[in-house]
Amino acid sequence: MDFNLSEKTKEKRKQVQTFIKDHIEPMENDYYKELHALDNSYTNLPQLDELKKKAESEGLWNLFLKEGEKEVSKSTEYAPLAECMGHSFLAPEVFNCNAPDTGNMELLLKYGNDEQKEKWLTPLLRGKTRSAFGMTEPAVASSDATNMAATAILEGDEVVINGTKWWTSGAGHPNLDFIIFMGLSLPEGPRHGRHSMVIVPKGTPGLKIERMLSVFGYHDEPFGHGEVTFKDVRVPKSHIIGGIGRGFEMAQGRLGPGRIHHCMRLIGASERALSLLCERSLSKVAFGKPLSHLGGNRERIANARIQIEQARLLVYKAAWMIDTVGVKHAMSEVSQIKVVAPRLSQEITDFAIQIHGGGGVCQDFPLAAMFAGARALRLADGPDEVHLALVARAELAKYQKESREQGNR
Amino acid sequence: MDFNLSEKTKEKRKQVQTFIKDHIEPMENDYYKELHALDNSYTNLPQLDELKKKAESEGLWNLFLKEGEKEVSKSTEYAPLAECMGHSFLAPEVFNCNAPDTGNMELLLKYGNDEQKEKWLTPLLRGKTRSAFGMTEPAVASSDATNMAATAILEGDEVVINGTKWWTSGAGHPNLDFIIFMGLSLPEGPRHGRHSMVIVPKGTPGLKIERMLSVFGYHDEPFGHGEVTFKDVRVPKSHIIGGIGRGFEMAQGRLGPGRIHHCMRLIGASERALSLLCERSLSKVAFGKPLSHLGGNRERIANARIQIEQARLLVYKAAWMIDTVGVKHAMSEVSQIKVVAPRLSQEITDFAIQIHGGGGVCQDFPLAAMFAGARALRLADGPDEVHLALVARAELAKYQKESREQGNR
Amino acid sequence: MDFNLSEKTKEKRKQVQTFIKDHIEPMENDYYKELHALDNSYTNLPQLDELKKKAESEGLWNLFLKEGEKEVSKSTEYAPLAECMGHSFLAPEVFNCNAPDTGNMELLLKYGNDEQKEKWLTPLLRGKTRSAFGMTEPAVASSDATNMAATAILEGDEVVINGTKWWTSGAGHPNLDFIIFMGLSLPEGPRHGRHSMVIVPKGTPGLKIERMLSVFGYHDEPFGHGEVTFKDVRVPKSHIIGGIGRGFEMAQGRLGPGRIHHCMRLIGASERALSLLCERSLSKVAFGKPLSHLGGNRERIANARIQIEQARLLVYKAAWMIDTVGVKHAMSEVSQIKVVAPRLSQEITDFAIQIHGGGGVCQDFPLAAMFAGARALRLADGPDEVHLALVARAELAKYQKESREQGNR
Amino acid sequence: MDFNLSEKTKEKRKQVQTFIKDHIEPMENDYYKELHALDNSYTNLPQLDELKKKAESEGLWNLFLKEGEKEVSKSTEYAPLAECMGHSFLAPEVFNCNAPDTGNMELLLKYGNDEQKEKWLTPLLRGKTRSAFGMTEPAVASSDATNMAATAILEGDEVVINGTKWWTSGAGHPNLDFIIFMGLSLPEGPRHGRHSMVIVPKGTPGLKIERMLSVFGYHDEPFGHGEVTFKDVRVPKSHIIGGIGRGFEMAQGRLGPGRIHHCMRLIGASERALSLLCERSLSKVAFGKPLSHLGGNRERIANARIQIEQARLLVYKAAWMIDTVGVKHAMSEVSQIKVVAPRLSQEITDFAIQIHGGGGVCQDFPLAAMFAGARALRLADGPDEVHLALVARAELAKYQKESREQGNR
Repeated sequence: MDFNLSEKTKEKRKQVQTFIKDHIEPMENDYYKELHALDNSYTNLPQLDELKKKAESEGLWNLFLKEGEKEVSKSTEYAPLAECMGHSFLAPEVFNCNAPDTGNMELLLKYGNDEQKEKWLTPLLRGKTRSAFGMTEPAVASSDATNMAATAILEGDEVVINGTKWWTSGAGHPNLDFIIFMGLSLPEGPRHGRHSMVIVPKGTPGLKIERMLSVFGYHDEPFGHGEVTFKDVRVPKSHIIGGIGRGFEMAQGRLGPGRIHHCMRLIGASERALSLLCERSLSKVAFGKPLSHLGGNRERIANARIQIEQARLLVYKAAWMIDTVGVKHAMSEVSQIKVVAPRLSQEITDFAIQIHGGGGVCQDFPLAAMFAGARALRLADGPDEVHLALVARAELAKYQKESREQGNR
Repeated sequence: MDFNLSEKTKEKRKQVQTFIKDHIEPMENDYYKELHALDNSYTNLPQLDELKKKAESEGLWNLFLKEGEKEVSKSTEYAPLAECMGHSFLAPEVFNCNAPDTGNMELLLKYGNDEQKEKWLTPLLRGKTRSAFGMTEPAVASSDATNMAATAILEGDEVVINGTKWWTSGAGHPNLDFIIFMGLSLPEGPRHGRHSMVIVPKGTPGLKIERMLSVFGYHDEPFGHGEVTFKDVRVPKSHIIGGIGRGFEMAQGRLGPGRIHHCMRLIGASERALSLLCERSLSKVAFGKPLSHLGGNRERIANARIQIEQARLLVYKAAWMIDTVGVKHAMSEVSQIKVVAPRLSQEITDFAIQIHGGGGVCQDFPLAAMFAGARALRLADGPDEVHLALVARAELAKYQKESREQGNR
Repeated sequence: MDFNLSEKTKEKRKQVQTFIKDHIEPMENDYYKELHALDNSYTNLPQLDELKKKAESEGLWNLFLKEGEKEVSKSTEYAPLAECMGHSFLAPEVFNCNAPDTGNMELLLKYGNDEQKEKWLTPLLRGKTRSAFGMTEPAVASSDATNMAATAILEGDEVVINGTKWWTSGAGHPNLDFIIFMGLSLPEGPRHGRHSMVIVPKGTPGLKIERMLSVFGYHDEPFGHGEVTFKDVRVPKSHIIGGIGRGFEMAQGRLGPGRIHHCMRLIGASERALSLLCERSLSKVAFGKPLSHLGGNRERIANARIQIEQARLLVYKAAWMIDTVGVKHAMSEVSQIKVVAPRLSQEITDFAIQIHGGGGVCQDFPLAAMFAGARALRLADGPDEVHLALVARAELAKYQKESREQGNR
Repeated sequence: MDFNLSEKTKEKRKQVQTFIKDHIEPMENDYYKELHALDNSYTNLPQLDELKKKAESEGLWNLFLKEGEKEVSKSTEYAPLAECMGHSFLAPEVFNCNAPDTGNMELLLKYGNDEQKEKWLTPLLRGKTRSAFGMTEPAVASSDATNMAATAILEGDEVVINGTKWWTSGAGHPNLDFIIFMGLSLPEGPRHGRHSMVIVPKGTPGLKIERMLSVFGYHDEPFGHGEVTFKDVRVPKSHIIGGIGRGFEMAQGRLGPGRIHHCMRLIGASERALSLLCERSLSKVAFGKPLSHLGGNRERIANARIQIEQARLLVYKAAWMIDTVGVKHAMSEVSQIKVVAPRLSQEITDFAIQIHGGGGVCQDFPLAAMFAGARALRLADGPDEVHLALVARAELAKYQKESREQGNR
């Protein structure tokens, strides 16, 4: 048993932390003020590109990939870096580690053919373009993926795409290059072999971004979350990733590490919230005492620390299992962290808001926006309830197997 | 013991419910779409004025006042109407029962002199103008009202006002007529006799709305929440309400019934959220079953119903105490409801969001905005912690008195 | 709307409170010490009989019945008295208001024939005997009453009884006179018309008290909770109460008011716990401060007060509905209180234990025993989950009816 | 980062699990029935001694010590074994790993002189005797150790001991050999250098076990928890352990690893409870479905699994810190687990009780007794609140140090 990070990871983490502290945090406020003052906030501001250039030049780039950018990093090595990036809304973009691009890059690395890699992956890896992912649909309960109604039907050399996707994050970004669309291709195929993933370039006729969705009032510009319609959209058959009918299989592979990323960022955000609230509780005075000395605040601070420690250890363990026994044998663990981390982050951010008073709910602190992000992640990538159901099934299966075995004797 | 509402109240409630259902709910979506599409959403749309005219003509107007508009309604009679209005963001405005106007009207009715009534109250009562209230300040922990730093100093026939107020709700409304400002007048006076309330008309030199504050990502147009600076603002001495040094006394009187209003509206909002989530859980299907049949959803529905019932009864009891023994003897009860109702509404709305999936956090349902409102009310009018402290003090005092009495024997 | 108790009820409550304070509380400690020092604690100590005589002579007797002892009291009138009795483990016995005797007396009053009344009811009403009720069974999930397996079959002029009952409270009492047994009589009858209730006198051949059950480690002597087997027990047909097949109907009628009793006693117990913990928190000092000034204790005190107030109001409302519209129309409300009151009492007692440190879990305070009682009541008379399910069904039915109606148009 | 246990530990764990399953679990029910049927349950039954002999002969003995019994095991190596022992009330005794003997043995190993080791330690190591520890006192809030009032005053060659201790676990055991008493020796010494620990042999004049304390209704025979008075008890000066005034220092050293033991046993108990409830929920049927398919049971099962995983990881991390950086640098972590593990165990056991219905609260399952044990451990070794305060202080200190450092520049 060893809870140490590798020396290499510690060093990289130090670099990332320093970069965030020295270069990102100081410019955040001005960046957002400038962005939100624009008539159209779906704009790529130049100061961000400069920061990205600097990060890339310092080797702080595509950190979710191993050196050489041919393979994803070990989950245990990337996890601590993802946590650091969770401290800042801008950091993931600056280090080219933003969702859903990371997942899309992993997908193309693993399943893309050479042409796809050259045309779509390379610019993404260099941070020149952004991408989106179209999975969830407004008309159905997407928590049950078999509800998916959109179609991607092969017709000769083309794939014909129809349907509506929403929560297509990144759809509003001016650098958006393509959307990876997932839809039903083989309605008569085996239950998890019916869907395909297809690259749909921005600007393809029939593809329309109908509107941008808000998350508690926020639009998360410049990337945003789109509702996108596909009406008889036609792309060449060569835009299918990995082969027809492999959509589910690839989605599963994508989700394990992706959830590690999300969860570690949420832990980073929780640490940020705890840090802000500790400072605030020491500096603000009411009824003659700092807030840290009033009511149950200290107990809440202690509980927050305890919950963060536990959540981080659980995500580390899930990451370690992905690294050592593979996602398939870490299904329960991955669902466990998907429940724990957003719930934790929502709770701690809520407490931090309370300590900040009126400042906590408004634009003066990042807390309300962090809350909205955590809250949304209790739904994105499967709602809490679906993950709890999976964990319970795995738990009960231990006893059902025993019963079966006993029955067999 | 009788849990019945009076026949008169039941009838009035029926009228209000019918008006909301027939006239307000059908236009809400279009209203907000039109409003938010404007370059400047701090705009009074004409369809709202028409609805207000209609409501007034039907006698559904200033419902917080008794007929004749000279006196506030009994809390037990207004409470059920406030609950109905909590179902809709627009209803309080339509019936001229919006905060902070209601509190301001009560204040002017009770403490205003004839001139103040004619000039400021009459147009408010007719719904021609809107008003704001400047109490809380950004630089201090306003949970402790004695932290208040802004000043309202008498100089000859004028009051000179300096300071910064924020969360001045209504500050963005185009019909804003005046702000009631509360500040320190007599720094050497007795602890609760130092502050005054002063009417500051919009447009008075030195008064500046610096910026509008967001609640989560919402700006709550057209009224909004302002940060307002007062720099050597001068108004005639006659703008003081009720007399110099009476600010705290009047604020206390204002808060009791005002909290009944807030809490009942939150209970109405909670009922709306529960209603939406029940319908949704019956109609959306995942894994072959409606959501109402999955996981712990039914238990959560039951708990929501139980909590709403309990909260409503508690607010009714506090209202009944205000009506029968007065606010001063209902201090603990008023603080109790101030803790219970926002917490309840936040929790139920959170659950409703979860049942609505991605729709729950975005603009397609009123839930995320309702959540933000409930969350903000855990801070406005005193944070949970301050009210819990008051309730605990009242509870422990029962035993300390006994100790004292025993000591005296 | 009126939250006042009637003058008559207030006066009676005052008498009960005074009696408990003056006569019961002072003897409790000695009583239990003496009882538990006995080799056989299932003993009726004479000091209890004396107190009962005194209570009866002062008219504080059978308080759940109206004067004349022919009819049950209004729920709203008995509820506040039940609360008072919840402060003390002995009080219900002293005033002849103990479960399950109260329910049994009500049953015999309402459904018993003259012979049953004379033979079984009259001594119970006079406090000369005790009774028990045999409903729940060890081998099945009794939360679903249709799981009941014990039988009461008519054979000529006799009823033949077989089966095992447990949690037969009162089975250990030396004054036990009879058990009301509920079992299957008409297996082919309509679902809720299959069961009968039969009086089985103590000492009937085939009736055996197998063992006494503990609640946590308590045996609740002198009455206790028995596991009772019935092996070909034969009693005359005239021992059937109300008629064959009416068991469920009578059980339902019994449960509504019975739950008011239980819940009000739990609220009384919660008040007692809160009172003990407030006193303790003011008198014990750690780290230089009374416990009432440490950590989150005050917030917990405030939350306890708030929860008790809400729970009491909810029980009052359910009682008022039983009085005004009848148990059948108060099904959801009765289930609501059955969830709320034991949960509340468990939670507050747990907190009180914590404030009492090591004293809280041991015999020095009544808290651990009160905790055990509250915990058991989350199972007795239907577990929380069954009541939550009923509340949810009632809630969702509102919308399903609407759907149906809309479908019919 | 490596979450694997060492091969040696895994093997030892397997042996312990097998021994418990094959030899301890099968005899538990009969053992307790026999024990509780005795007039005096404070009795050492011979079957236990046989099991102990067998365990020792198989090398499953004093597992908290390294081979050679000269030094305590690494915390990370003992922790998984302690977890296994938490599945059964008897296991710790069988493997000679019972509290408070383990702590007493560690103490004597580390600080005892040769005579003390020979006379008191050797028989304990061989399981021939039992010991107790007298620390907490009934008259004061022992959460603040400086409240300690009992005295151990040096008079010539003797130590004179006065005071009352309670919760002296093991005081009722027939094999009790000695109590380690902690008391004030140097009232004028430095704050943490005033107390001494002294060996008081059973039977020393002036030492009296006044009564045995119950935990909920349990007496935890045969060892039990005593209230013990010391009235002018005199023992030779050579009975002081480690030197006069070193009591606090030694207590601190004792507590770190001791809390790992407690917490891991609680995690074992939680696993046992989860296991029992899963089996029960699959086998019991209500309303036509197994309980595992009803209401929120599956979500609760999932949450239980998640909480156990997190708690175990946190205890492992604390153990690893004790092993690598020492108790002093793991103070916050040790307090964190002391809060988490009992709370977890109480919560899961409560849920397991609910799934077991009436069976859950009575003697048919170990659940109610496990609950009582977990509940008591939220008080023993420092109540939750004291540990939360310590964690909060450590958290806030990070920011106060920064402030100080910034102030120094």
